[in-house]
Amino acid sequence: MNTSRRQLLALAGIAPFATLAAAMQRAQAEGYRFGETPGEAWDIAAKAHEDLMAYPGLVMHGAEEIAMVCYEGMTMLDLVGPQYFFASMMGARVHLVSADPELRPVQGDTGFAIVPTLAMADCPGVLDILFVPGGTMGTVRAMEDDGLIDFIADRGSRAKHLTSVCTGSLILGQAGLLDGKRATSHWATRHLLPEFGATPVNARVVQDGNVTTGAGVSAGLDFALALLAQIRGRPYAEAIQLQAEYAPEPPFDAGSPDKIDPALGEPMHGMFAAALHAMREAAANRKQR
Amino acid sequence: MNTSRRQLLALAGIAPFATLAAAMQRAQAEGYRFGETPGEAWDIAAKAHEDLMAYPGLVMHGAEEIAMVCYEGMTMLDLVGPQYFFASMMGARVHLVSADPELRPVQGDTGFAIVPTLAMADCPGVLDILFVPGGTMGTVRAMEDDGLIDFIADRGSRAKHLTSVCTGSLILGQAGLLDGKRATSHWATRHLLPEFGATPVNARVVQDGNVTTGAGVSAGLDFALALLAQIRGRPYAEAIQLQAEYAPEPPFDAGSPDKIDPALGEPMHGMFAAALHAMREAAANRKQR
Repeated sequence: MNTSRRQLLALAGIAPFATLAAAMQRAQAEGYRFGETPGEAWDIAAKAHEDLMAYPGLVMHGAEEIAMVCYEGMTMLDLVGPQYFFASMMGARVHLVSADPELRPVQGDTGFAIVPTLAMADCPGVLDILFVPGGTMGTVRAMEDDGLIDFIADRGSRAKHLTSVCTGSLILGQAGLLDGKRATSHWATRHLLPEFGATPVNARVVQDGNVTTGAGVSAGLDFALALLAQIRGRPYAEAIQLQAEYAPEPPFDAGSPDKIDPALGEPMHGMFAAALHAMREAAANRKQR
Repeated sequence: MNTSRRQLLALAGIAPFATLAAAMQRAQAEGYRFGETPGEAWDIAAKAHEDLMAYPGLVMHGAEEIAMVCYEGMTMLDLVGPQYFFASMMGARVHLVSADPELRPVQGDTGFAIVPTLAMADCPGVLDILFVPGGTMGTVRAMEDDGLIDFIADRGSRAKHLTSVCTGSLILGQAGLLDGKRATSHWATRHLLPEFGATPVNARVVQDGNVTTGAGVSAGLDFALALLAQIRGRPYAEAIQLQAEYAPEPPFDAGSPDKIDPALGEPMHGMFAAALHAMREAAANRKQR
């Protein structure tokens, strides 16, 4: 593999969509020729890029500041689903924000850790998107972490879009950001929303003013696409939906309490009893901000 | 927060489902009483756990060894979608495997890194599931990494289930594991499968013998549920589908080339021209194993 190619492949540190465009632009600037096809692949990609930019209503470039709050015990899929779509917004800066100035890895609730990219102290004051993922016991700890809740309350007071997936909405509520707002949460915790100041809505994605909340875990994909369309236009969102090949075909139809056999759904709800109680305790201790 | 509660919350290092069961069992063993409800939450969870175990065809516990291969430039959502479902298999051991004995963070293609949990040298020889995620330029580099491909070929020769999502199937093929097998891949790369020894099938999830492949990125959720049902029974898979609230409602219907406006779909395919060429080059250099 020659040096030029190594340089080219070294560009793969961002989302595929952005990667190919960036690689293409840099390669062309360097007069780079790819493998045995003299520039052909780049000519195709260059035309593709121009065609997309010319598509009515598609906003190809932006400079959004996006902060995704990371905390110990968060559910990684809550974060990584939306992160895929946010990172596909060419020009946007997607920060994984941690309270730890040393940016030590943050352990999720499925047995692995991610490395945050920005300390809360360094997070831009005015954000385009503030995002909070959910979890179970880790989310209870987050609700009881004054530093974390203060950060969310502060950035939330100025963010253009206040967002969450799963039980992340309860954290937004703990920070006083959902008072009087309609919102959703994981099906097992949606009924707790009033204790966090919000009006529960049984929907996959709920928007009320500048607050957009998603339902449990996998709802993050639907949530992110809806938000992406708002910010970059529906054609951009559809292009990224295609990139993600998001044409879901669940093998079963058991993804909500009203669809699953109650003999499975009721005990699954019961499994959350301890977490629900702890969340209620946290809500009762909610500080006014 | 009292010590017992801290201990309890400290148990949140695994999937919610397993967390609550483990927390419940430990709390009961310790005679722990939760908050103001003397054991009530635990009694509910205990009964829920028993009810689930009694459900016909639901296999609650197992001891599967699952290795998810991590490489620089992989698409995180390809990995984290299935990881959520695998980690919800009570008793299973889900390893994020890296070639680096020091387990340094592995950078994905959307701008952040995860911390692998096991070095290839320490990976069990016989696996229940070997999983390979996809990517674009990073996947090309993986195809050209003899150490990585040798590891996949070796573990793949003995694994009970050989699996991938997105362009991960091309890596399985590069390791000689798809010869004569039907498989799928990301829509933009599916037509390359014959160059990697496989017969392409245009489907969300494709199973051929012990090889199960998923389509692009988001197909990992459908792939994981299908595999989970095979291993732990459909009721277990449905219970985890409910936990993940996986009842998708994409706001648009643009997730495959046959659904999106061709004026968007064709340039999106064009954006992959450079990656497709590099993947073809890698296939041409494929070693016989």
